[in-house]
Amino acid sequence: MGEVSASLDDLPIRDDLRGMTPYGAPQAMLPITLNVNENTHPVPQEVADDILDAVALALRDVNRYPDREFTALREGFAEYLGYGLTRDQLWAANGSNEVLQHVLQAFGGPGRSAFGFSPTYSMYPLLARATGASWIAGHRDQDFSVDADSAAAQVEAADPDVVFLCAPNNPTGTPMSIDVIEAVYDAASGIVVVDEAYQEFAPRDEGSALMLLPGRERLVVSRTMSKAFAFAGARVGYLAADPAVIDALRLVRLPYHLSALTQAAATAALTHADTMLRMVDEIVAQRDRISATVEALGYDAYESWTNFVLFGGVEDSARTWQALYDAGVLIRDVGIPHHLRVTAGTEAETTAFLDALASIGSGS
Amino acid sequence: MGEVSASLDDLPIRDDLRGMTPYGAPQAMLPITLNVNENTHPVPQEVADDILDAVALALRDVNRYPDREFTALREGFAEYLGYGLTRDQLWAANGSNEVLQHVLQAFGGPGRSAFGFSPTYSMYPLLARATGASWIAGHRDQDFSVDADSAAAQVEAADPDVVFLCAPNNPTGTPMSIDVIEAVYDAASGIVVVDEAYQEFAPRDEGSALMLLPGRERLVVSRTMSKAFAFAGARVGYLAADPAVIDALRLVRLPYHLSALTQAAATAALTHADTMLRMVDEIVAQRDRISATVEALGYDAYESWTNFVLFGGVEDSARTWQALYDAGVLIRDVGIPHHLRVTAGTEAETTAFLDALASIGSGS
Repeated sequence: MGEVSASLDDLPIRDDLRGMTPYGAPQAMLPITLNVNENTHPVPQEVADDILDAVALALRDVNRYPDREFTALREGFAEYLGYGLTRDQLWAANGSNEVLQHVLQAFGGPGRSAFGFSPTYSMYPLLARATGASWIAGHRDQDFSVDADSAAAQVEAADPDVVFLCAPNNPTGTPMSIDVIEAVYDAASGIVVVDEAYQEFAPRDEGSALMLLPGRERLVVSRTMSKAFAFAGARVGYLAADPAVIDALRLVRLPYHLSALTQAAATAALTHADTMLRMVDEIVAQRDRISATVEALGYDAYESWTNFVLFGGVEDSARTWQALYDAGVLIRDVGIPHHLRVTAGTEAETTAFLDALASIGSGS
Repeated sequence: MGEVSASLDDLPIRDDLRGMTPYGAPQAMLPITLNVNENTHPVPQEVADDILDAVALALRDVNRYPDREFTALREGFAEYLGYGLTRDQLWAANGSNEVLQHVLQAFGGPGRSAFGFSPTYSMYPLLARATGASWIAGHRDQDFSVDADSAAAQVEAADPDVVFLCAPNNPTGTPMSIDVIEAVYDAASGIVVVDEAYQEFAPRDEGSALMLLPGRERLVVSRTMSKAFAFAGARVGYLAADPAVIDALRLVRLPYHLSALTQAAATAALTHADTMLRMVDEIVAQRDRISATVEALGYDAYESWTNFVLFGGVEDSARTWQALYDAGVLIRDVGIPHHLRVTAGTEAETTAFLDALASIGSGS
């Protein structure tokens, strides 16, 4: 062929897709990339070695379809999470986006609605609409927090089929306390998804929504290996819920959706949870260093229980973003005026960011 | 938790999912499993070693999100397929089911329809309905073939948004000639997907629908690594089409849907295409041996260009299936009365199947 013979408009594409452009953060090749909340620490060699051994074993019968029930991996997640969970309460997919897509395929869809407190993870409305559901944006306070009374009242008024609580919240880093989650669950008649993608970066003595699972069959707690486990490239998201919810997800997943290599790699990585969580402690220290330093530079850092910091008081966020880019540091303009978001990197990466930011001048 | 607190009926699941049970062939632990058209030959050690080296390299930055454009893998597919294809005409996903799901998400959906000549791959109607599209079943001749005139007339009458041509067809093994595909394309106003999952098992001098791509922007040719490449466990499906079609698929895929490990493993495996295709020759020899032997036993073997054989003339297919099961051989009852389907295995597996079948008695 060689020549482009058609454009998107020539094709019988769905009407609701016309004029759209693909989602995605820019993948720029800069020395310091702190824009997509990755764990910038590579997987330690000892862990990588174990993963590779597991993959080698899986390759021996990669000619066969994988275990459709990914039993060993679900057991690994149950053990890692604790709270008395068992494998029949666990589910996984290729990234938490696919996990959330499964939830929406089972409980959302045409004529239904999904809800989240804006600003929140930008994929929620995209995932909801892709399954035909509408999106309802709730609101947060000025500091991006939401209290139990307001949260419950908003959810009760909207009565959505699926509620997404990003806890702690992306892109703001904001904690959400257990009483807010409880209040939302009581106010909702649909599924309540607590997206704990960043939970490992919260203070260790703070509880997870996992503690609320007993007796709450509409509650779903999702997690990812992308952040704490430095596994963004391996695409492994998971969730815990009542076994009946897991049964519902079995109805909508594609058969054999999780490859034997993914299952082997993730199961092996989970056995090194202690090592990976020590890495989390280092990232949390850098996050707190970012918060303190940007405050000292005159910006406003929002409280963060994640691996990133949202800071406000940026006079011209596009100009500051570009100045950092020109200095070789990629961070994220998440579309909140006068705000920027930066991922906590290694100590050296964090220093490079803070030095570059300091050289630009101070906050407004 | 420990106790099951809810059943599926207690949950606010979508109405169209109520009462459904999950899709899936039984995964029984029998000595000889010839039921799901896997390649029963393990990946050769030299190939596995190369794959493992590639995975080891990918693990070095598995903490980062993978290449969203899986550029190296698309180049690998373009080179493997030939026909002058370039990487901007290639797409891939976690198994050909996900590839087909992407096509349906872009070109199917609510209020639209998908079409296939029944009996055909049982996932097509499930995938279509999961995106909200309706399913229209066309018909084949007694021998499961379909000629150009009939195919074109049926497609023209149904005027579907997406046509699936399984060529060669699963579960019947039936070839579909290029002129049928051309006639269907001309008769269709929607997307025409030629599913060549089993194409590598067809006679080498027979052309692929890939030859029809130039100038046909609604034509899609899908393939899989599950069969010829003995890679069912790795979940890699792909397709070739006009670059505009690929752009459409970018609108519906989840960001980073293909893991870095999958990309690395598949790219490495593709460099060993010659080795893998020699394995295909062995499987084709066993397939032809099955056809000849079941005919000699009094059954009717349908012409097959795949890695399996459908045979008719089975008096009581449930009883024959059970007798084979009891003999340690798992094959597939695909729901066509008086017919059974068996995958061509290694020489030893094929012998075990044929011996067991012979011991049951002869066809009706």
